[in-house]
Amino acid sequence: MASVDSRYNYNNQSFNIHVSASGFRMRSLRKTVLLAILVSVVLVLALLHSWPTRAYTTVDVWQRQGPVVERHLEERLPEPDHRLGNIPFHVRDNVASLLARNGCVCEGESGGVNLPFAQLLFPRVSAHPLHTAFEASELEEMKRRRAKEYKSFQERSQTPTDVLIIAEANNPLQYPTQGVEVRPLRTIIIPGKTSDRINITATLGTLNVAAEVDGMKIKGDGEMHMSLSSSLLPNLNRQLQFVTYTNTLFHPNTADTVQLETEGHQASFSIKIRHGVTPKLYNTGSKGEYNVSALVTIATKTFLRYDKLQDLINSVRRYYPTVTIVIADDSEKPQTILGSYIEHYIMPFGKGWFAGRNLAVSQVTTKYVLWVDDDFIFTANTKLEKLVDVLERTTLDLVGGAVREATGYTATYRQTISIESGEEDGDCLHMRRGFHHVIQGFPNCVVTDGVINFFLARTDKVQQVGFDPRLARVAHLEFFIDGLGSLHVGSCDDVIVNHATKIKLPWVSQSESDKTYAKFRYPPASSDATHTKNGLLFFKNRFQCLTHN
Amino acid sequence: MASVDSRYNYNNQSFNIHVSASGFRMRSLRKTVLLAILVSVVLVLALLHSWPTRAYTTVDVWQRQGPVVERHLEERLPEPDHRLGNIPFHVRDNVASLLARNGCVCEGESGGVNLPFAQLLFPRVSAHPLHTAFEASELEEMKRRRAKEYKSFQERSQTPTDVLIIAEANNPLQYPTQGVEVRPLRTIIIPGKTSDRINITATLGTLNVAAEVDGMKIKGDGEMHMSLSSSLLPNLNRQLQFVTYTNTLFHPNTADTVQLETEGHQASFSIKIRHGVTPKLYNTGSKGEYNVSALVTIATKTFLRYDKLQDLINSVRRYYPTVTIVIADDSEKPQTILGSYIEHYIMPFGKGWFAGRNLAVSQVTTKYVLWVDDDFIFTANTKLEKLVDVLERTTLDLVGGAVREATGYTATYRQTISIESGEEDGDCLHMRRGFHHVIQGFPNCVVTDGVINFFLARTDKVQQVGFDPRLARVAHLEFFIDGLGSLHVGSCDDVIVNHATKIKLPWVSQSESDKTYAKFRYPPASSDATHTKNGLLFFKNRFQCLTHN
Repeated sequence: MASVDSRYNYNNQSFNIHVSASGFRMRSLRKTVLLAILVSVVLVLALLHSWPTRAYTTVDVWQRQGPVVERHLEERLPEPDHRLGNIPFHVRDNVASLLARNGCVCEGESGGVNLPFAQLLFPRVSAHPLHTAFEASELEEMKRRRAKEYKSFQERSQTPTDVLIIAEANNPLQYPTQGVEVRPLRTIIIPGKTSDRINITATLGTLNVAAEVDGMKIKGDGEMHMSLSSSLLPNLNRQLQFVTYTNTLFHPNTADTVQLETEGHQASFSIKIRHGVTPKLYNTGSKGEYNVSALVTIATKTFLRYDKLQDLINSVRRYYPTVTIVIADDSEKPQTILGSYIEHYIMPFGKGWFAGRNLAVSQVTTKYVLWVDDDFIFTANTKLEKLVDVLERTTLDLVGGAVREATGYTATYRQTISIESGEEDGDCLHMRRGFHHVIQGFPNCVVTDGVINFFLARTDKVQQVGFDPRLARVAHLEFFIDGLGSLHVGSCDDVIVNHATKIKLPWVSQSESDKTYAKFRYPPASSDATHTKNGLLFFKNRFQCLTHN
Repeated sequence: MASVDSRYNYNNQSFNIHVSASGFRMRSLRKTVLLAILVSVVLVLALLHSWPTRAYTTVDVWQRQGPVVERHLEERLPEPDHRLGNIPFHVRDNVASLLARNGCVCEGESGGVNLPFAQLLFPRVSAHPLHTAFEASELEEMKRRRAKEYKSFQERSQTPTDVLIIAEANNPLQYPTQGVEVRPLRTIIIPGKTSDRINITATLGTLNVAAEVDGMKIKGDGEMHMSLSSSLLPNLNRQLQFVTYTNTLFHPNTADTVQLETEGHQASFSIKIRHGVTPKLYNTGSKGEYNVSALVTIATKTFLRYDKLQDLINSVRRYYPTVTIVIADDSEKPQTILGSYIEHYIMPFGKGWFAGRNLAVSQVTTKYVLWVDDDFIFTANTKLEKLVDVLERTTLDLVGGAVREATGYTATYRQTISIESGEEDGDCLHMRRGFHHVIQGFPNCVVTDGVINFFLARTDKVQQVGFDPRLARVAHLEFFIDGLGSLHVGSCDDVIVNHATKIKLPWVSQSESDKTYAKFRYPPASSDATHTKNGLLFFKNRFQCLTHN
């Protein structure tokens, strides 16, 4: 009776007890007693019926103390197989040098001429060791804590599908090596073929047969270890077409490693156990042309710059009169912002830049979100339909545009980002200006890893990556670093927004709000070193070094 | 010169041009011209140096029009291999019935006695077809749009690692079937063995050798198709230990299917191409006992119930005087909330329940977040340290507690949630009261899929799943539905919070704020049908049916 749309009610039952006032006459005491016994028996039976009859098994979800499974395939030149060890070879340096080293080294490009134009024409790579975010006195403790948190993270994020498995040569078994998946606590058929008796072992579920074939000897059906044999090989292989796996140990996202064994040979493969990815689709409004108001919400954060913010809003309204604008505001004395289709959120004073960005995107209900800074100005070149077109027609998750300064200089700020594995000290993060490829069919657009602060993105992906509220002041690429592996990023230079002037003319004095803005924009050192940009890269993302040009 | 902590500057260069006022005397015009030519040549060389010399390839990231790859292993009884087709078999119904049907059917439990206690003692399963969220006139359009959005989603979320691959029997090739991974645009060694000449083909990268072995014939090294042969088999296998794969087509998260071919045999396997999962670790504060203020932020949403909210805050402060409380508030006339360690966020009036929840958790900077409703009361039984202990020591992501009503009735509201694959009409969502297993070492705790609105959770996981701001009013399990496959959920019944009374005493009239609260709490139909609970389940999550007891 608890229908989906009913009010959320902790007490799932609601019943009325009527005490009849008209009386209830018993013919004799015996009948009363008998009736009472009958009712009690019925109630007891009912209680027993609904009593949990399942014997609940316990599950071990403890974090382990032992070493974590080695994830990556050995990336260095392998130790020679002893039988092949004496065969000579010559290293190809140009290829061998591409292989990962043991850990990563924090170094930039040295030397170079120190001319005025040098950094412009010959951008050198600089390297920044990140442990410097911490005082020497706290560094050891920070490393210890980071290592502990990282180990927990690894246990939670790795699954048996990450383990290296190598298929034996000349194995008479035929079996699936990829693509076998079952929903938690469900059952599937697993295909296979053999040339002799076969033993199958699982650890998170049981094996059985959905149909029995004549002439078979089956042992352990319904258990975690099953063996099948027969004097007739065709029958054995027909039986193998009916082998089922049932997951019995619940986990929302893991894998079971199934072992197969026959005379003299073994094999193993993974069965992914997971719910599957539930889609998060958005309604797109009417078909036909792109309805920007139905598809896009504009999001921004403001702080003490209501004049610039109003200029932004006015410029947006010239081209998109009904698109919703979400504004996160952590000014000290928040002002009212008038206008339809505006959602204004007041935050604690100075809560911060990325906190405000995270707030704004957390409120978006349309398929796409457009990020703008509060000092942008829309022009006739700010055609959001072009950005929508890119995301509607490609598999990209985010596409940046270009920002034009008052000088006419237009920037796309494309950055490629890569990670080089380190060891206990952490990985090395490398950022370089540039992009990977041009996008086929969109000649003004490229694929890259980071872009400027003017971009259209799939709302669900941006919300999933998030803007870390620990970043209070200056931050930008941290969002794209957090999005690595998750966001497929593009950049188009033909959709342009203007940037309200930043040029400080010497004869114009700074306004009070400008001064306060400058004070918060370029802050003093934070008290919590793990909340500074470098401190976060070190602790949160487990990097040891950042290099960039 | 653009160091990581420097101000974010679109113009990456900043240089000063000094015009010397002291004059500049040229000895002769010729020297001027020569100098000008020299400077021009230097500048041109510099420009050429920094000119992109890479020929950027184009990449195809278009969404495809064709059918999407079939993900799941055939879950029904297979068609017989023609050679085995005439071998008789008998179906085992108890096992065969566990296999997935063709699509899912929307049906509950019928019949049952309609007694006052019936739903309490014999909770029946009811089934709710979700298309009923839409008017008949709009349903076809909604189905069409949903199908289109779903197809895009599938293309973006599936990778070649989902495809079923079956290893051939008696294959002389030895090769990896799982666990091979490379970071984008990087290089790894891929191991293998053969018995004869071998051809290797990749599609998203090139093959090469890191070292050359004598007596080898190598063709296509550095290309997408490479062949190796030799008259000496040991040399061929030694060479195979030096084969490298270099990813050349950038994608942040995909896989390349590598084909191997030798005389009469083939094999294929996937190389995952991805950045790897960058951790998002949190600083935990001092070691030793659990420092709840450093580890936990309390988050809640309030609407018109400042008296209850203040009661909550006062009760929290009795036990946790310095823990941060984040409050999302969409009341019409927001009041100030006094107190330290309180962060109060003002939203547009009536913006909504899940929007407020999403806002509150978007602001949390500690490792864990504790969700409470604004009418809870902390007592001596509300020991947050116990919940922290569970998450610190297990791999769970979220653990619920228990809520005690004024009557003494204490609820944990445990729900198991599963999805049954449907076909074009969508999947079936099944929710049942109960849990899966007891947690080893925590006898008061179990593993389940959904819990009551009093829980401690890992902040990064909750932020990743999110509370969909499209859910304006009543909603609860939608968060856990969105979290399926991502959140590992537990529930402990020994950490209890009290619920401020809901019993409406007939002689106490409702206050004005209570009346407004009731009006918004139990709302009229929304204008956008895809933003109702059933409409969202239908469109966003692509379900056709919900069953529950």
